[in-house]
Amino acid sequence: MITRVSSLTRETLIGEGQPTVLIGERLNPAGKKGLTHALRSGNLEAVRKEAEAQARAGADILDISVSTFGVEEESLLPQVVKTVMAAVDTPLCLDSHNPAALEAALQVYKGKALINSVTGAEQSLARILPLVKAFGAGVVGLTQDDHGISADADRRLAVAHHIVERAAALGIPREDIVIDCLVLAVGADAKAGLATLEAIRKVRAELGVNVTLGASNISFGLPGRDVLNGAFVAMAIAAGATSLIVDVAKVLPAVLAADLLLGRDQRARRYIDAFRQHPRL
Amino acid sequence: MITRVSSLTRETLIGEGQPTVLIGERLNPAGKKGLTHALRSGNLEAVRKEAEAQARAGADILDISVSTFGVEEESLLPQVVKTVMAAVDTPLCLDSHNPAALEAALQVYKGKALINSVTGAEQSLARILPLVKAFGAGVVGLTQDDHGISADADRRLAVAHHIVERAAALGIPREDIVIDCLVLAVGADAKAGLATLEAIRKVRAELGVNVTLGASNISFGLPGRDVLNGAFVAMAIAAGATSLIVDVAKVLPAVLAADLLLGRDQRARRYIDAFRQHPRL
Repeated sequence: MITRVSSLTRETLIGEGQPTVLIGERLNPAGKKGLTHALRSGNLEAVRKEAEAQARAGADILDISVSTFGVEEESLLPQVVKTVMAAVDTPLCLDSHNPAALEAALQVYKGKALINSVTGAEQSLARILPLVKAFGAGVVGLTQDDHGISADADRRLAVAHHIVERAAALGIPREDIVIDCLVLAVGADAKAGLATLEAIRKVRAELGVNVTLGASNISFGLPGRDVLNGAFVAMAIAAGATSLIVDVAKVLPAVLAADLLLGRDQRARRYIDAFRQHPRL
Repeated sequence: MITRVSSLTRETLIGEGQPTVLIGERLNPAGKKGLTHALRSGNLEAVRKEAEAQARAGADILDISVSTFGVEEESLLPQVVKTVMAAVDTPLCLDSHNPAALEAALQVYKGKALINSVTGAEQSLARILPLVKAFGAGVVGLTQDDHGISADADRRLAVAHHIVERAAALGIPREDIVIDCLVLAVGADAKAGLATLEAIRKVRAELGVNVTLGASNISFGLPGRDVLNGAFVAMAIAAGATSLIVDVAKVLPAVLAADLLLGRDQRARRYIDAFRQHPRL
């Protein structure tokens, strides 16, 4: 099953047989003082630079969030989308819980966007899925609902089923849904990694849809985060994750290695090219 | 299923619920000019230093091979074993295809050794398994036979079945067998990693025995070997490998990360302790 996401001039394919798709997470003010300040003051030069840096680092899609206290998402999100579209040809993932902001951004976006995100909660399904349908977009479905994020993989799978069914009822094709199996910190719960890996395997086996993850959450609060993140993305890709929402520059080596190890990089061409271009990978 | 290996004063347990056991591969002259020269000239100081370095790096077991042109294995292997026993308390894995050398080493070894290795070939089974039985040792069973190493995971599984059955016929308990699922270079065959991962899963599911791998072979001939090896050991441990034959200092970070991610490191204690001791991990 292939999920297509596109800009005006470039298409990214998520799915089996394709290299793992990297969704750049850095255009998001959460935890970033500089970007937060830039967004509040409407200085979009910082946005342009970050978009270009992630595109250079190898991002296949850029996630765009402006959600932070003190901004008007409905006007700022489309502005930021226009700025990024002018800077790079990378397809975009529009990231907001605010349907009005998403709609305004979808109206200016040129291509087939990914919307991040819908959850299994009734209010979210009712407000987000009609936008997905109306704009022919793809959507990231988070495996959480009114009860929050379950520690149990089967419960996350059940939420994924629910999202896929509700989307189908509106005529949204299954290939336009990318399920986020959710990652909690393994430092807080020793079973957190296992729960996500099991959820990935089950969602892939039962629903066949593409799967993404905010992989770096796994190492929150621990030392050696790059080592942990690298091992986790290798395991997650082997379990069936077909895309990742990550700091691309940091996880690229592990992802290239994982794709090669899983037979998705004939004659190791992508891997060797990357090392030629960046010998310090 | 737990495989016990011991020295006079220390026991290493291989198996589910235990941290992944690291078997240090560096006391092997293959590809090492300095060690080869030292072994040929009978200078065992280099052996002592290498044993100490691997023990410090965190090896749980040390593999000991002296197989190289121009040495008398039957006399040298027991000498080297005595030297290593005097230097470190790490349990040993006696590595030779020469039954007389293995027997001489087993006679001087104090503890329960692992023998590396038996294959599925008739001559190997007939010569090695009686030694395993006579000395109450453990044994590494390579999933190859007279036809060499198969690219097919099912064929490797069949060899593992054959080794386990032949051992059982001599009264060797299944927990004393560690199956090596074999690793070929992914640079030469894009499916090499997949074949090994599938063999690991099948051997664990069907036979339940412990599994080991010479993991670093995967990256032979490619750049960025540490990145590839790290991703591969994470996948292999997730697939069910319970021990690895490796350069311990190099793969330790990825292995600690994998154990933590798979819920085998409560409160991340081993992982955090390792980072405290070696902040540059």
